[in-house]
Amino acid sequence: MIDLYTWQTPNGEKPVLMLEECGLDYRLEMIDISAGEQKTPEFLAINPNGKVPALVDRNGGEGQTVFESGAILIYLAEKTGKFLTASGPGRYETLQWTFFQVGGTGPMLGQWHHFTNAAPDQIPYAIDRYKKESLRLLGVLDDHLKDREWLAGEYSIADIINFGWVRSGLSGLKGEGTETLSHLMAWTERVGSRPAVKRAIEKLDHAKRAKSG
Amino acid sequence: MIDLYTWQTPNGEKPVLMLEECGLDYRLEMIDISAGEQKTPEFLAINPNGKVPALVDRNGGEGQTVFESGAILIYLAEKTGKFLTASGPGRYETLQWTFFQVGGTGPMLGQWHHFTNAAPDQIPYAIDRYKKESLRLLGVLDDHLKDREWLAGEYSIADIINFGWVRSGLSGLKGEGTETLSHLMAWTERVGSRPAVKRAIEKLDHAKRAKSG
Ligand SMILES: N[C@@H](CCC(=O)N[C@@H](CS)C(=O)NCC(=O)O)C(=O)O
Ligand SMILES: N[C@@H](CCC(=O)N[C@@H](CS)C(=O)NCC(=O)O)C(=O)O
Repeated sequence: MIDLYTWQTPNGEKPVLMLEECGLDYRLEMIDISAGEQKTPEFLAINPNGKVPALVDRNGGEGQTVFESGAILIYLAEKTGKFLTASGPGRYETLQWTFFQVGGTGPMLGQWHHFTNAAPDQIPYAIDRYKKESLRLLGVLDDHLKDREWLAGEYSIADIINFGWVRSGLSGLKGEGTETLSHLMAWTERVGSRPAVKRAIEKLDHAKRAKSG
Repeated sequence: MIDLYTWQTPNGEKPVLMLEECGLDYRLEMIDISAGEQKTPEFLAINPNGKVPALVDRNGGEGQTVFESGAILIYLAEKTGKFLTASGPGRYETLQWTFFQVGGTGPMLGQWHHFTNAAPDQIPYAIDRYKKESLRLLGVLDDHLKDREWLAGEYSIADIINFGWVRSGLSGLKGEGTETLSHLMAWTERVGSRPAVKRAIEKLDHAKRAKSG
């Protein structure tokens, strides 16, 4: 059995999309990050960085623990042989757009979100800095998608990992310069209309409600 | 022949370390990011995100282009069979600490550096935010290294990718809470004393001087 420790956030939902796409059996262990559950000793033993998501695959022997969404998606791709071609140029195209997400849209939209919605004071310089960089990154994706259906050849972990933060960015930055990102909007609809993606979002929503009571 | 487009920065030096460790032939193409060379049409055709490093492997056929340092290191590891075990738990341990760098110390120390040294005004809230998060991340590495020589089993791409930002963080944040990170300091010395790492740093230094004239 695979246990996925996660929460309903752009990073937390990535492995749920992947597990559903792969048709694997798994259990959701909800870690309420608004209640600080990601910093308990039990969870830090799984991910010493104290962040969701993290996965424990208990199938066979001692099991495999993996944290960092990018590493989790590669683990599941290599376990199932799906959504990441085993060799050839397409493999590294997929991996580069995967890392682009982890080092780019994730932290930059995260900072924009923090300074816009969470910081005690509004700091115009910081809000503007992260808005501009987020829009630039979304623009890079939009441009790349102008003559492509998916980010790297076939539907892959690159699409799966980019989806949540793009959706969150397009909605958070609506009216701030996202109107022209038509290729990215169309891609978001394509990803979002996949049955596995719909199931993943519903299951996470349901699990969060069940946990929050 | 492998062409590496890069500059003398914590991200730019990662693939140079790896190329030297693997004993591969390569050419350094210096992209002066202080002069904006990462945003020329020629370079954007290689990396549409306009950042160093990027690699073009011209060996055989059309060649392979890869951007994002994490994807470049995996490409070189899989090309040579070195520094990333092909299967088993160690593979994903290596990958998780690789992603930890790309999504963690890179962007957070980068923001700390920006608000400390580059932003037009000193914004105490932002400086403090990124100082704290950077120290927390360095602390996670330090703790992980308390009973380990390398981040994930044998010396691997996880060590190679983490080195530059750790070195930069330990030096930039000296006296701000890094004194206790003794395991991390010892690891930095271990990595830094490897002949391949020394050669990489020297070659990059030399190439930068030659370019800057
Ligand atoms: N690079 C990490 C980012 C993980 C991350 O930032 N998770 C957030 C939720 S979206 C979290 O756990 N935040 C709680 C905290 O940092 O305390 C990944 O891709 O897995
Ligand atoms: N996640 C990327 C980060 C690359 C990056 O931020 N590169 C910096 C140099 S350290 C750069 O090119 N900056 C110039 C710019 O953004 O215009 C990677 O790991 O390759």
